[in-house]
Amino acid sequence: MSLRPYNFSAGPAVLPESVLREAAAEMLDWHGSGMGVMEMSHRGKEFIAIYEAAERDLRELLALPSNFHILFMQGGGLGENAFLPMNLSRGGKVDVVVTGAWSQKSLGEAKRYADAQAAASNESSGHTNMPAPATWQLRPDAAYVHVCSNETIHGVEMHELPYLAALGSRAPLVVDCSSHILSRQIDWSRVGLAFAGAQKNIGPAGVTLVFVREDLLGHALDICPSAFNYKTVADNGSMFNTPPTYGIYIAGLVFQWLKREGGVAEMERRAIEKAGLLYGYLDNSGGFYSNRVQANARSRMNVPFFLTNEALNDSFLAEAREAGLLQLKGHKSVGGMRASIYNAMPLAGVQALVSYMQDFARRHG
Amino acid sequence: MSLRPYNFSAGPAVLPESVLREAAAEMLDWHGSGMGVMEMSHRGKEFIAIYEAAERDLRELLALPSNFHILFMQGGGLGENAFLPMNLSRGGKVDVVVTGAWSQKSLGEAKRYADAQAAASNESSGHTNMPAPATWQLRPDAAYVHVCSNETIHGVEMHELPYLAALGSRAPLVVDCSSHILSRQIDWSRVGLAFAGAQKNIGPAGVTLVFVREDLLGHALDICPSAFNYKTVADNGSMFNTPPTYGIYIAGLVFQWLKREGGVAEMERRAIEKAGLLYGYLDNSGGFYSNRVQANARSRMNVPFFLTNEALNDSFLAEAREAGLLQLKGHKSVGGMRASIYNAMPLAGVQALVSYMQDFARRHG
Repeated sequence: MSLRPYNFSAGPAVLPESVLREAAAEMLDWHGSGMGVMEMSHRGKEFIAIYEAAERDLRELLALPSNFHILFMQGGGLGENAFLPMNLSRGGKVDVVVTGAWSQKSLGEAKRYADAQAAASNESSGHTNMPAPATWQLRPDAAYVHVCSNETIHGVEMHELPYLAALGSRAPLVVDCSSHILSRQIDWSRVGLAFAGAQKNIGPAGVTLVFVREDLLGHALDICPSAFNYKTVADNGSMFNTPPTYGIYIAGLVFQWLKREGGVAEMERRAIEKAGLLYGYLDNSGGFYSNRVQANARSRMNVPFFLTNEALNDSFLAEAREAGLLQLKGHKSVGGMRASIYNAMPLAGVQALVSYMQDFARRHG
Repeated sequence: MSLRPYNFSAGPAVLPESVLREAAAEMLDWHGSGMGVMEMSHRGKEFIAIYEAAERDLRELLALPSNFHILFMQGGGLGENAFLPMNLSRGGKVDVVVTGAWSQKSLGEAKRYADAQAAASNESSGHTNMPAPATWQLRPDAAYVHVCSNETIHGVEMHELPYLAALGSRAPLVVDCSSHILSRQIDWSRVGLAFAGAQKNIGPAGVTLVFVREDLLGHALDICPSAFNYKTVADNGSMFNTPPTYGIYIAGLVFQWLKREGGVAEMERRAIEKAGLLYGYLDNSGGFYSNRVQANARSRMNVPFFLTNEALNDSFLAEAREAGLLQLKGHKSVGGMRASIYNAMPLAGVQALVSYMQDFARRHG
């Protein structure tokens, strides 16, 4: 049992304790090199070994086909919102499926570089459902279709990626999977590019992963900064500029941990169990708590919920903190509470949360 | 005396041992918060405290006037090479003083967004001197003048920033000080914007510092990505997107260490002492070693040098490693050796290097 509190932050977020212990132990001397990882030249053989292992483990965990590159970049999802249309739109059309705050932001930024429009939107439901792919208004000549497969703020997850060809589109699918990457497998046959800020389900902020199919490289607009041109980054093995070395190292330790724990299949099994426990209680709390997302669109990673009596919100948070349950306040744009239960959150953490919620409801109900 | 080897990497580079020890000790629990710094929401009170202390300490160390913003960004110097003209050029003219590989790259990227040209160049000398400001061909209507005040690869330093007004220019001066920031004071009255990748003289790769005068904000080109628009970043306190939180934390620990050690004035005194010792020996090694940079342009941070008998290069590096002196190989574009002797390199490290070089020369001379 952990002596640390359980941290439900939406990101940057909890890391496996064993990863943190390993990083602390190696801080001054990585594997007898006489250097800490933060102190290594990114072109030295020590860091190259760290980098290659991280890339190899990630490729294995995600069963990434060989015609996809993995790019270790910077700038996060909001950076990618600009770099995507710069690299892929060719100045043409971009279709965005709006399912919450993140895809809404992606649409807004894409409009600055391309003829971008919403192919669908769940805004009228307050971002609580998932528009069925059959209802999406896809333009046949779009350069790409952008979806956010897990909306961190609204707690909405696309449980199956669309097969665009079956919807009459030949456009590549672009997937923002920042907040649930490595919690379930990705069907790469349906994907042209996927990206993820690492600070949610991997760990360190400042690392952005881009998985891009070979044929999508080399079409960047002239205005694309060289350091963010996917082809330039790919051609230089993510070392065109100095990569965020320590973040890549920590991500690599997380990948090793994932492999030891059983990989993505095991993470998916655990995610189903953890999310099932929490949603199950929310739906059976006698109206004391609620989650407003449609059942088939509920995220396994980010669970926003509300106390029916919102006057109790401050007490709920204060007593949760006393009980060793941290960072449960909801995003300001949604309100209420949010529990992010990423891969590094053990089942015991969700059990402790539910137990606390039951107790709180009993005392205040 | 340190038990670790001395690490002369040009970047990412050596960090103060006390900083690494502090970071290791706090890895699982920062100040009783129950969270490691990597696991904290960037908007939580714990990280905000870390961020504000880092910003305050850096402002104090650099005596930064209140009309300058400090932005904590991502993308490094090569990213800034694009974001600078996007933010400051207004599509007009940019004058770049070429003094080595870094300013050459800055010029190349600026040309993609503006009418950029070299105001001066030391290329004919192999980047071994510093063109006198009086000889610079400055265009009166340039949007800004870009200099690299320390060239990491060529070991050339601009020991005094130019006073552009005295040269007949009203353009703001933009200074890339990546590889010697915090080793000497900056005369902010001569500067419009300065920037630095943190991975050389501060520590963690993936943090880019931008110091920008208030009146230069708000003139970005339409094509500038929102996450890299200086005004957007400034208006959001560097939290428009998730900042590289752990890197900022480590930088903050380095700033605290600098304050404890006596600040920038003391770092400058030490830099003069360390560089003086090394150049002094190079110039008096009986021709066994040499540095080719003109005396008034020599960098106090990056000291490239050559063995006259280059057939001994491999032995020099192998025996140096045996002697606990790491990462001395020169940049591939220059060849030979390079010793980077940043703030975190103690005088004892330079003494050990000189002592080894003397011994090597005696044995192979």
